[in-house]
Amino acid sequence: MSLEKIFDRFLPQIEGDLQQAVRIPHQSLAPYYDIMRYHLGWVDEEFRAIQANSGKRLRPVLCLLACEAAGGDPQQALPAASALELVHNFSLVHDDIQDASPFRRSRRAVWDIWGAAHGINVGDGLFVLARLSLHRLSDRSVSLGRQQAASLALDQACLALCEGQFFDMSFEEHLDVDLDQYLWMIGHKTGALLAASAQLGAIVATDDLACIDNFFRFGENLGMAFQIQDDILGAWGDPQVTGKSAATDIRDKKKTLPVVYALNHSNHRAAKQMAHLYAQEGPLDASAIGSVLDLLQGLGARQYSEEMAETYYRQALQDLDETGIENAAQSHLRELAALLLGRAA
Amino acid sequence: MSLEKIFDRFLPQIEGDLQQAVRIPHQSLAPYYDIMRYHLGWVDEEFRAIQANSGKRLRPVLCLLACEAAGGDPQQALPAASALELVHNFSLVHDDIQDASPFRRSRRAVWDIWGAAHGINVGDGLFVLARLSLHRLSDRSVSLGRQQAASLALDQACLALCEGQFFDMSFEEHLDVDLDQYLWMIGHKTGALLAASAQLGAIVATDDLACIDNFFRFGENLGMAFQIQDDILGAWGDPQVTGKSAATDIRDKKKTLPVVYALNHSNHRAAKQMAHLYAQEGPLDASAIGSVLDLLQGLGARQYSEEMAETYYRQALQDLDETGIENAAQSHLRELAALLLGRAA
Repeated sequence: MSLEKIFDRFLPQIEGDLQQAVRIPHQSLAPYYDIMRYHLGWVDEEFRAIQANSGKRLRPVLCLLACEAAGGDPQQALPAASALELVHNFSLVHDDIQDASPFRRSRRAVWDIWGAAHGINVGDGLFVLARLSLHRLSDRSVSLGRQQAASLALDQACLALCEGQFFDMSFEEHLDVDLDQYLWMIGHKTGALLAASAQLGAIVATDDLACIDNFFRFGENLGMAFQIQDDILGAWGDPQVTGKSAATDIRDKKKTLPVVYALNHSNHRAAKQMAHLYAQEGPLDASAIGSVLDLLQGLGARQYSEEMAETYYRQALQDLDETGIENAAQSHLRELAALLLGRAA
Repeated sequence: MSLEKIFDRFLPQIEGDLQQAVRIPHQSLAPYYDIMRYHLGWVDEEFRAIQANSGKRLRPVLCLLACEAAGGDPQQALPAASALELVHNFSLVHDDIQDASPFRRSRRAVWDIWGAAHGINVGDGLFVLARLSLHRLSDRSVSLGRQQAASLALDQACLALCEGQFFDMSFEEHLDVDLDQYLWMIGHKTGALLAASAQLGAIVATDDLACIDNFFRFGENLGMAFQIQDDILGAWGDPQVTGKSAATDIRDKKKTLPVVYALNHSNHRAAKQMAHLYAQEGPLDASAIGSVLDLLQGLGARQYSEEMAETYYRQALQDLDETGIENAAQSHLRELAALLLGRAA
C-alpha cells in the first residue's frame, strides 16, 4: 500500500474531528479562532475557506493505527488523535516565533502576519484546545481510567517537548554539543510526541501496560529515525523531493546529527575546520556549504547518520514485533514506518 | 482576622507543594527549571536561593479555603492549588513578552533576562507543569471522577484566559470598546481563573454540583470586583499603598473600566476629548494625565467604577450565602473578599 493510501483512509475523519475541536464557539470570538484555523490550513489570511498544505497529520494517523492494531476502535480514539495534532501545531506556532521563521508549509507564519504577541496567544490557545479535545474521549465511552492515562501521557509528552525545545535553543548558542546530548534532545523534541501518538492510540484500546509500552517505544524509535532522516535530507536531500533548496540545514548552520558527529570527531583537524566554519556570523555562502559537505563526507558523517536512522528504524519494527500482534493495522504501521523512512515496504 | 493571617495559615504548605511541582527532575535540566524557579521568586538571576516577592498566591489560598468551606480537606486540594498558581504564572510570563514589560514584581521579567524565545518556552513549561501538578490529585485519594472534573474545569478556565487575552490585546489597538465588551474581557482574563480556583477547591470536596457552581460564581464575581478595584487604583491609587507611581494606567493609556466608561459616555464632547488624548502616540505626559483625571472625575467615571466593584462584591457574597454553608473557612472567604477589596471585614 502507498503512504497516501494509508493516510487517506483516516484523513477525512481526522479533519472533521479537528474542525470540531477548533470550532468557533461564538461569532464574537471568530477573529481569534480564525487565526488558529489559518495555521491549520483551512482559511487564508482574510479568513476565506481554502485548501492549503496543512501538514501530514502523521501523529493522528499513528494514533488511530496504533489503536486499531491494539484491538480498539479508531473512532473512539479520534479526540486523542486531534489532541496530538493540536499539540504539534501549538509547538510549531511557538517555534516559528522562537526561530523568527517567516514561513511554515509555504505560507506566512502566524506571527509574521499578526505579530509575535498574538502568535504566542494563538499557540497557547491551540495547546488548551488540545487538552479540551482529549476531554471529548468521554463522549466516546472511553473509561475514566483510560482517559486519565491518556491525559497523563499527553502531559508528559508536552513536558518532554518543552525540555527538548530548551536544549535545541541552547545548542544553537554554542558548539560543544556531544552526540548523547543531541540524541537526548531529538528524543524529547521529536520522539516524545510520536511516542505519545502510538501510546494514546493503544491506551484507548487496551489496559495491557506492556502492550501500551511497546507502542510507546515504537513511536519513540520511529520519531528518532524520522528526525535523523530529516537531518540527512537537510544536508543531502534532493530539492525536487524535499521541496526545500539543497543543503538548507547546512546553510543555516543547524546542529543536525551529521554536523554534531563531525564537530565531535576524533579527527581533530577536520573537527576544528568544521567548528571554524560554524563559528562564522550569519548563514554560510555557497563555497562554505561546499566545504562543509566535503568535510562531512570525508569524516563519514553521512554514513554514520544513515546507520543511526537504520538502527532506530529496526528497533521500532522490533517494538512492534514484541506486541505479538498480527493484523492489518499492524502491517500498516510497518508500511508507514518503511515509507516514511524511504525504505521499500 | 487580617489578610496576612488568612494567607499565612496556608502559605508554607503552598510553597512546599509548588516546589514539589517545579522540582528539577535531573541536574542536566536545571538550567530550564531554574528560569521557572526564578520567575516564582525562589532564586535570583544567577540561580542562588533567595526570598523575593513571589506574588500573593491568591488563587491557591482561594482554592484551599473553598475546599475547606465545602467540607473537604485542604491537604487533598494542594496539587490543584499549585496548578492554579502555575497557570497564573504561565500567563504572566507570556503577558510580559506580549506587553514588552521589562519588570514583574519589582524584578526583571524572564524575557528581559533570557530573551523572548526562552520566555515563551518557560511559559509553556509552567503551563505543562500546572497540568502535571493536577495529576498528583491521584496521590491524595481524590476520586477519578473528581480528578476529571477538576481537569476539565482548569482547561476551560485556561481557554477563557486565552480568549480574554486575545481581546485585551485587540482592545489596545482601537478605541471603540464598549462596556459590555470590557466586562466580558475581564471576566475571561481575570474572572475565569479566580472562578476556577474556588471551583476546583469545591470539586475536591464534594460532588454537589449546585454547591460547586456557587463557589465558581463567587470566584468569578470576586475576580470582577478585584479587577475593577485594580482599575480604580491604576487611576486614583495612593502610590504609598499600591507600590506603583500614581496614575500609571492613565499614563500608559490602558483601557480600564473608568476610561472605557468615559470613552462611551453620552456627553459626546467629553468623550471626544478623552478619545483625542488616547489617540496620541506613546505614554501621556503629566499635563495630559491631569486632563484625563479631570475628565474622568467630571463624567463620574470613578463613582461608576466604584459602584460596579461594589455590585460584583455584593454578588460574590450572595453566591457564598447561597451555598447555605456556615463554618470558619466560609467566614475566611468573606473576610478575604472584604480585605482584598479594601472593605472593613
